[in-house]
Amino acid sequence: MEAGFVGLGAMGHAMAANLVRAGHTVRVWNRSPQKAEDLVAAGAKLAASPAEAARAGVVLTMLAHDDALRDVIEGDDGVLAGLPPGGLHVSASTISYELSQALEARHAERGQAYVAAPVFGRPEAARAAKLFVAAAGADDQIARVQPLFDAIGQRTFRLGERPSAANLVKLCGNFMIMCAVEAMAEAMTLAGKGGVEPKVMLELLTGTLFGAPVYSIYGDILVEDRFRPAGFTAPLGLKDMRLAGAAAETLRAPMPFLGVLRDHLLQAIAVEGEDVDWSAIALAVRRNAGI
Amino acid sequence: MEAGFVGLGAMGHAMAANLVRAGHTVRVWNRSPQKAEDLVAAGAKLAASPAEAARAGVVLTMLAHDDALRDVIEGDDGVLAGLPPGGLHVSASTISYELSQALEARHAERGQAYVAAPVFGRPEAARAAKLFVAAAGADDQIARVQPLFDAIGQRTFRLGERPSAANLVKLCGNFMIMCAVEAMAEAMTLAGKGGVEPKVMLELLTGTLFGAPVYSIYGDILVEDRFRPAGFTAPLGLKDMRLAGAAAETLRAPMPFLGVLRDHLLQAIAVEGEDVDWSAIALAVRRNAGI
Amino acid sequence: MEAGFVGLGAMGHAMAANLVRAGHTVRVWNRSPQKAEDLVAAGAKLAASPAEAARAGVVLTMLAHDDALRDVIEGDDGVLAGLPPGGLHVSASTISYELSQALEARHAERGQAYVAAPVFGRPEAARAAKLFVAAAGADDQIARVQPLFDAIGQRTFRLGERPSAANLVKLCGNFMIMCAVEAMAEAMTLAGKGGVEPKVMLELLTGTLFGAPVYSIYGDILVEDRFRPAGFTAPLGLKDMRLAGAAAETLRAPMPFLGVLRDHLLQAIAVEGEDVDWSAIALAVRRNAGI
Amino acid sequence: MEAGFVGLGAMGHAMAANLVRAGHTVRVWNRSPQKAEDLVAAGAKLAASPAEAARAGVVLTMLAHDDALRDVIEGDDGVLAGLPPGGLHVSASTISYELSQALEARHAERGQAYVAAPVFGRPEAARAAKLFVAAAGADDQIARVQPLFDAIGQRTFRLGERPSAANLVKLCGNFMIMCAVEAMAEAMTLAGKGGVEPKVMLELLTGTLFGAPVYSIYGDILVEDRFRPAGFTAPLGLKDMRLAGAAAETLRAPMPFLGVLRDHLLQAIAVEGEDVDWSAIALAVRRNAGI
Repeated sequence: MEAGFVGLGAMGHAMAANLVRAGHTVRVWNRSPQKAEDLVAAGAKLAASPAEAARAGVVLTMLAHDDALRDVIEGDDGVLAGLPPGGLHVSASTISYELSQALEARHAERGQAYVAAPVFGRPEAARAAKLFVAAAGADDQIARVQPLFDAIGQRTFRLGERPSAANLVKLCGNFMIMCAVEAMAEAMTLAGKGGVEPKVMLELLTGTLFGAPVYSIYGDILVEDRFRPAGFTAPLGLKDMRLAGAAAETLRAPMPFLGVLRDHLLQAIAVEGEDVDWSAIALAVRRNAGI
Repeated sequence: MEAGFVGLGAMGHAMAANLVRAGHTVRVWNRSPQKAEDLVAAGAKLAASPAEAARAGVVLTMLAHDDALRDVIEGDDGVLAGLPPGGLHVSASTISYELSQALEARHAERGQAYVAAPVFGRPEAARAAKLFVAAAGADDQIARVQPLFDAIGQRTFRLGERPSAANLVKLCGNFMIMCAVEAMAEAMTLAGKGGVEPKVMLELLTGTLFGAPVYSIYGDILVEDRFRPAGFTAPLGLKDMRLAGAAAETLRAPMPFLGVLRDHLLQAIAVEGEDVDWSAIALAVRRNAGI
Repeated sequence: MEAGFVGLGAMGHAMAANLVRAGHTVRVWNRSPQKAEDLVAAGAKLAASPAEAARAGVVLTMLAHDDALRDVIEGDDGVLAGLPPGGLHVSASTISYELSQALEARHAERGQAYVAAPVFGRPEAARAAKLFVAAAGADDQIARVQPLFDAIGQRTFRLGERPSAANLVKLCGNFMIMCAVEAMAEAMTLAGKGGVEPKVMLELLTGTLFGAPVYSIYGDILVEDRFRPAGFTAPLGLKDMRLAGAAAETLRAPMPFLGVLRDHLLQAIAVEGEDVDWSAIALAVRRNAGI
Repeated sequence: MEAGFVGLGAMGHAMAANLVRAGHTVRVWNRSPQKAEDLVAAGAKLAASPAEAARAGVVLTMLAHDDALRDVIEGDDGVLAGLPPGGLHVSASTISYELSQALEARHAERGQAYVAAPVFGRPEAARAAKLFVAAAGADDQIARVQPLFDAIGQRTFRLGERPSAANLVKLCGNFMIMCAVEAMAEAMTLAGKGGVEPKVMLELLTGTLFGAPVYSIYGDILVEDRFRPAGFTAPLGLKDMRLAGAAAETLRAPMPFLGVLRDHLLQAIAVEGEDVDWSAIALAVRRNAGI
C-alpha cells in the first residue's frame, strides 16, 4: 500500500526501510533530507514536506518528542494540512498523553482518522522488524494499516478505541523498566554491602521469579557497569518520566515510585553527566550507600 | 543420610516429607507434635526436643520468624545444646540478617558448622520438591547437605562463604517481588484511569519485556482482584520488609523503594484488614487515586 | 509615581487599591473591566489594554499563572509592545522559573528592564498592605519601584540580580509550607492513633521549637478540620508544586519531599474533590492510616 | 522532696544538678560513679544501685536508649525491685513507644505508678533549667512530681493519662525537626543552584512564615556548614527515626516523609561518617544535586 513516513531518526529510518522492503510505496520526509537518501535508492519517494507525505492518504510519524511532532503537524506544509478527508495519521512517537488527546480532536475536526501506535524496542529491534506495536484507535483504522505494522513489528497489541490509551501504555512501559532497574539496583547494593556478588545475585534472580528480558538486559548493564555509551540517555528517560508524571497529574493518579525515579535520574544527570544511560540511576543508588 | 528437622509448618512439613520420601533418615520435631504424625507413619522418627533432632549431626530448621527460631536454638533442649561438635545446622527460615550473623558466631564458638539456606517458593512448590535453595556457608558444608537440598528443591544457588549473605538475598528477593507488584499497580492504575483494561495491559507486559513469573503470577492477582484468601499475608510481608529495612540500617544502604512499600503495606493493613494478601498494596495504590 | 497595573484578581485588586490609596497614579487593566470600577472611582485610570497600562513606563503584573501572564505580555496590545525603552516590568505573579528567565531575555532584547517581585501573603494581608515582597533584579530598578513595594507590603527582601531567583524563592516558600503541613499531619496522625489529642499536640509544638505562623495557621486548620472553603485550593497548590518540580528538573536538583507532596495533593483532589484547601493533604495522610 | 535519679549522662547530670540546687534530696546512681562526684559534693547522696535510688519512693530515669533503660530496670538491683508499692517511676528518656507500654504494665503488676516525661532541649537548656517537659500518666502522679519538673524545665505539657503517649510525642517532635531540616535543605539547594544565597534565603524564611527556633537554629547550621562537631549525631537521629518507624508499624500509620529521612540519614552516615550531626541530611541533599 501507499503511505507517507515522517521522521527518519534511528528508529524511524529502520521502520521506513522495513516498509520499503515489504513492498510498500513510501513517501519519506525528514528535516535533514540526506537521511532519506538510501531509502530513496531502495525505492522510496522523497516528499517535499510533511504535507506531501500525508497526501498519500496514510501517514506514519516517528519524532523524538512533542515539540518535534507539533512542528511537522502544524502549518501549510504540515500533516494536518496535507492529509485528505478520510485519511489516517498513525503516530508512532513516544509523546505525551495530553498531545495525543489534542491530536485526536484536531484530526476529528477535519474528518481525518487518528491512530496512536507507539512501539517497544530499541533500534536493533527496529532494524530486525521485531518491534512490538501498541495500537489504539478505531478498529477499522487499525485493520487498515495492519500490513504496515506487520512489516515493522513482530506483534501488534490492540489497546482499545481511545488512541491516547496507547501513549499511556508506552509511558507506563518505560516507567516499569525504570522500576525494575531501581529495584535491582537497591537490592544489589544492599546485598553487595553484605558480601554478595552482583553477578551471582543476578543469576539467582533470572533463574527464579525474575526471568524476563527487563531483568537480564538491565541486570547485565548493572553487573558490568556499562552506563556509557548510552543506549537511551538519562535525559531522555527523564523526559519520559516527566510525561508519565504529567499524565498522572491529568488523571489524578499518585505514583510514589515515579517520584523516586525522577529524583534518581536528576541525581545521575547532575553527578555523572548528561550522556549516561538511563540505567545510571543505579549509580545514584550506589553512591548514596557510600560505594 | 541422617538429619534432624525442626519446624513442621506448611513449608517445613512439605520439605521434611520430601526428605523422607527420598530415603533419608529424618528425626522430626515440632512444637505441636500431631503435625509430625503422618511423617512418622511414613518412616520419620519423632524427636523429643530440638536438641534430640540436632543430635543427628545435621539439623535443618524451618521456623516462621526470628523469635520462633531463637526458641528452638536456646536452652538445654535446644539445637545449640544438642548438636555435636562438627555437627551442622542448616537454617532454611526467612530470618533477619542480624540473627543469622549471631547464629554463625554462636555455632563457631561451639565448634559447630552453620549454613544459611533460605528457600524461594510457595507451599505448592515445597510439596512438589520444586523449591529454589539459596545457600551460603563453607563450601564443604554445603556439599555435605547437597543431597538434602536435591530432595527438596529444583536448584541450589551458592552465594558464597558468609551464611548471612543468603538471608540478605532472600529478603532482597521478597523486596523485589513487592517492587514488581507496586510498579504494576501504579502503571495499571494510571492506564486504567486513561481507559486501558488491566487484562489487556498485563497481556502486553508479559508478552514483551516483562515475561517473568513475578509479573504473570501477581499480575493475575491484580487483574482478578484476588487479595483474599491470602497466599502470604500483608503483615508477613511487612515483617520481611522490616527485616530488609533493618539490614539496610545495619549495612548503611538507603532504599527509597522500600519506604514506599512499607507505607503501602501499612495502609493496606490499616484500611483492608490484617488478613489480606501482601499484593493488596495494589488496593492502596487504587484508593489513593480515588478508585 | 505613575504606574500601570495589570491583573485585578483578589490579590491584584487589593495591591492596586493600596497603590491608589498611597497617592500613586495607577493605570489599571483587567480582562473583565468591571473589576476595575471601584478603583477608577477611587482615582485610578482605566487602561484600554495591557500595552496602554505599560505605557506608564512602569507596570506591575499580577496574574494567576504562566498562561495568563503570557496572554497579557504578547501581541500588539501586550506589555512588551507598550512598555517604552527604559521602561520597567515588575512581575509579582507566582510563575515558573522558566518563564521568568524567558521574560528577562525578552525585555532585555527591547531595552526594557525586568524585576521579579512575587509576594508572600493571603488576600487579607494584601488588603492590609502587609505582604512580604521578594524582589530580584538590578538594584537601581528595584530602588526605582521601592515606593510601590512600600505601599503594598510590610517588608521587601532583596534576592540578588537575577530576577528568576525571586520566582524560585517564592516556589520554595510554598513548598516549605506544604512540607510543614505534611510533617504535622504525619505526626498528628501517628500521635492521634496513640491517644494524643491533636489540639494538645499543637499547643506543645507551637509552645516549643515550632512557634512560627506556618505551624499555628495550618495547625489550627488541621485541628479544626477546616479544609473547606479553601483559602488556596489543592489544584492551585498542585500547580505550584509542579512549577517547583519543573525548576528542580531545569536545575538538576532532586527533591524527594516534593514527590510526596505531589502524590498527596493528587490523592486529596482525587478523593476529596477539586475544591478542598491545599492543606487537605492531611486528609490523605489520615485516610492512609485507616482513619 | 526526696527522689532517686538514675542516669548521669550530659542531660541527666544537668537535670540532677538542678534538682539538688532546688533543694530536693536526691539519691543519684550512674554506671560510672565518678559522674556523680560533683553532685555528691553539692549535697546529693550516692546510691549503691538503681534499686537503692528507687527506694526513695520516687525515681527519675534518664538513659540513652531502650537497652540502657532495661538494664537499670530489671534484676535484683533494678528499679522494679527497689521501688516500693505506691512508688513512682518517672521515665524521662527518649525510648520506644513499645517499651514505654511494657513498662506501664510491669509497674502496674507491682502496684507501682509510672509516668513518662521525656524532655525537649539540648544539654545547654538542661543546664539552664529551660527544658520543656512532655508528661503523660495519671494526673495525681504528675502533680506529685510537678516540683521536680519545675526544677528542671521552663514548662510542663500534660499529654493525657497514657504514659506512652508522651514518648510518641517526643519521637514526633524529633521527626518534625528532621522534616524542617530536610525541607530547608531541599529548598536551599534548589534556590542555591538558581543563584540565591542561602543566608539571604534563611533571612527571608525566618522573617516571614517560618520564624521559629527550629528554622533559625538549624538554618544557621546549614548556612554555616557546621555539621561537626555534632550536637546530636546522625546515628542517634537514625535511632529515633527507627523508633518512630516502629511506632508507625505498631499503630499502622504510613509516614512517607519518615522514609525519606531514614534514607538521608543512612546516606549521611555512609558517606560523611558516623560522627556528623543529624542535620547532615542536608549534605545528602546537596550531593545528590551534584554540589
